[in-house]
Amino acid sequence: MPQRKLGRGVALVGAGMSKFGAFKGKSSRDLFVDAYQETLASVDKGFDPLAIEALYVGNYSSDLFEAQGHTAPILAEWTGLLPRPATRVEGACASASLALRQGIIAIASGLYDMVLVGGVEKMTDLPTEKVTDTLATAGDALYEIPAGFTFPGFYAAMATAYMHEYGASPETLMKVGFKNHENGALNEKAQFGQRIADIMESRKAGALKKGRPVPTWANEMDFLHDSSVNPFIAWPLRLFDCSPVSDGAAALLLVSEELARNFSDKPLYVAGSGHASDGALHGRTTLTSLPAVRHAARQAYEMAGVTPADIDIAEVHDCFTIAELLAVEDLGFFAPGQAWKAAEDGSMARSGAKPINTSGGLKSKGHPVGASGIGQVIEIWKQLRCEAGARQVNENLRLGLTHNVGGTGQTGVVHIFERR
Amino acid sequence: MPQRKLGRGVALVGAGMSKFGAFKGKSSRDLFVDAYQETLASVDKGFDPLAIEALYVGNYSSDLFEAQGHTAPILAEWTGLLPRPATRVEGACASASLALRQGIIAIASGLYDMVLVGGVEKMTDLPTEKVTDTLATAGDALYEIPAGFTFPGFYAAMATAYMHEYGASPETLMKVGFKNHENGALNEKAQFGQRIADIMESRKAGALKKGRPVPTWANEMDFLHDSSVNPFIAWPLRLFDCSPVSDGAAALLLVSEELARNFSDKPLYVAGSGHASDGALHGRTTLTSLPAVRHAARQAYEMAGVTPADIDIAEVHDCFTIAELLAVEDLGFFAPGQAWKAAEDGSMARSGAKPINTSGGLKSKGHPVGASGIGQVIEIWKQLRCEAGARQVNENLRLGLTHNVGGTGQTGVVHIFERR
Repeated sequence: MPQRKLGRGVALVGAGMSKFGAFKGKSSRDLFVDAYQETLASVDKGFDPLAIEALYVGNYSSDLFEAQGHTAPILAEWTGLLPRPATRVEGACASASLALRQGIIAIASGLYDMVLVGGVEKMTDLPTEKVTDTLATAGDALYEIPAGFTFPGFYAAMATAYMHEYGASPETLMKVGFKNHENGALNEKAQFGQRIADIMESRKAGALKKGRPVPTWANEMDFLHDSSVNPFIAWPLRLFDCSPVSDGAAALLLVSEELARNFSDKPLYVAGSGHASDGALHGRTTLTSLPAVRHAARQAYEMAGVTPADIDIAEVHDCFTIAELLAVEDLGFFAPGQAWKAAEDGSMARSGAKPINTSGGLKSKGHPVGASGIGQVIEIWKQLRCEAGARQVNENLRLGLTHNVGGTGQTGVVHIFERR
Repeated sequence: MPQRKLGRGVALVGAGMSKFGAFKGKSSRDLFVDAYQETLASVDKGFDPLAIEALYVGNYSSDLFEAQGHTAPILAEWTGLLPRPATRVEGACASASLALRQGIIAIASGLYDMVLVGGVEKMTDLPTEKVTDTLATAGDALYEIPAGFTFPGFYAAMATAYMHEYGASPETLMKVGFKNHENGALNEKAQFGQRIADIMESRKAGALKKGRPVPTWANEMDFLHDSSVNPFIAWPLRLFDCSPVSDGAAALLLVSEELARNFSDKPLYVAGSGHASDGALHGRTTLTSLPAVRHAARQAYEMAGVTPADIDIAEVHDCFTIAELLAVEDLGFFAPGQAWKAAEDGSMARSGAKPINTSGGLKSKGHPVGASGIGQVIEIWKQLRCEAGARQVNENLRLGLTHNVGGTGQTGVVHIFERR
């Protein structure tokens, strides 16, 4: 069926995020307050926070990560927004993008003029193996988890299929991570904001300091091939192919389009929003594409009236390096089987024809799963407003896209933002 | 601020639910398919299910109850609705009402004409003490749970305060449960669909059969005072003051108002929707009212343009018997401190001036927490359409209300439905 338009337009007039990382002693509510305060400060012309009429929060599982359910009203309490309606929305690692989508829909419905949307996750209280178990519940607990699958395994299956079908190599994947660390090194909010070269040098310095033999890595690729520092997690994925376990929060202030200029002279407008679902991985006919993402992208492009070629910049869901390759093909930026060549030739670098994950992506910036989707929007906000500092691609960016995946692709969400 | 109207009207044209109870071997997806199939069959003029454009699902914590996160796309898969967008919405025991609200908002936004909303919870796979722990996460895990509170404790505090403030007695609470069992005995979907008298007689027969001394309870109240069959859970609340641990699902088919008559000659119209939040119980200034419910009720009444006196029938959130008394006061049906008298004099019985919980309520029908809010709407659907069989109050019901509470009242949701 043809994509319908929203009843009225929606604009972004504020954006903020906590630092992403591992923060002992900070719970979801603390992280969310950090993001909220930065959001308030970001509104160019200022405003009264009590004009916020509702809150939508993306969160994957404070239930399992923090033994805290019913998280949304707590965040309304800690941001001083009571008694405003607070709703938690969940779509695994795409939870924040779904919260954003509900906020957009709610304004379009005429019920609200101003909505705060956000996402948060506190993952590092659990030991790593419990985090892996918790994330695995985003697969199918009846058919997949008992078979031994965890998320590195799911994406390793996709990587293996992609390499087999199209001729990419494990080194291609390394180059995706390499590029995202180059970007993340310029992002002060990033959890692992170091270039691979810097990590390598710091390991050398550490060995020297401890009186151990100093490794003789010839270059970054040599470093990434060393299984003692970059072990296989699930072949062909190594440690540096995987996004980290993270704590973090991010938030956006949405208003109805006609009010946008009351808050900012450079608001961003929501041009397109798409969302689709798929079955669990075990039943799919392809491992080299996520059909839900293709549906969501089509919806967003149609709503915006644009094509993939019109998109100036995108943040895509690189939970694993392979996921970035699937993403840019499913979004139509590159033909099927061609993304790995783009990863090799630098087309997706900041200076390339299609800059991808200039924030550092989930790989370098961090992946607090319930916050990541809005974390992506923060980068689009900065780039389109020419506020990305050393990461700024250029000053002529007009259309930015975010691509957020839940689970193994059971949820796909795509948004397009426009500077007018 | 004044309550705004929705951009366009929304109607209910289908409704269905699974049986509520304890169903070994059935998971959330199975229960939801049961509800979905009954919903399809309920559409008077029939329709093509593929016209459904989106799915919103309320679920409290499949994460903790079933070790299954990311539940919404699984339900889209099992109902054959892929690749339609499936979104999980969570607000503790008010999750289903929040899913309903998002479905209403989504149609009002113009994005969809037809949306399936539902709720589901599978609670009985866990041992009872784990269920209690899981439900406790709907309180505040930082300040309340470490102090030893579980949900019977929270509501016992409210009951104690109510009795102290207004003069009600534990016997008043028993009469609430007594009434709800009278109603639930006429509901074939109820988990504990027996009158208290029937339960008493069956216990007597059981003792006789096993050759044990047959208890000599004089009447139902005598039975309810026997701590060997009705032990205290948290004084003054006894076992029969508490809703049960349940499995179940419920669903509704929503369409934009102008399409309603294509599907049914007796659709229900969404007249009002309200939602508000509150802080955790430990910080509140009252224990005898839930402020979030009062806010939500005001919104719903204003949107509908009606007063409490106009409501013909209501399903309210009787997770504990005391909660029904707070509900009918917060909804404005009775003045503060007066509801207990109404419970004593029969005003809330099916034959009373304000019939409450004619379905049996959560107490008798069951309380699969993520489904309960839509389970309530099912009763309003039946009563307003004169399809409630032996429970039918009368044939002149025009306005029905549902009242759904999350946690200890951090989430309050009220909906009003109209037969025109």
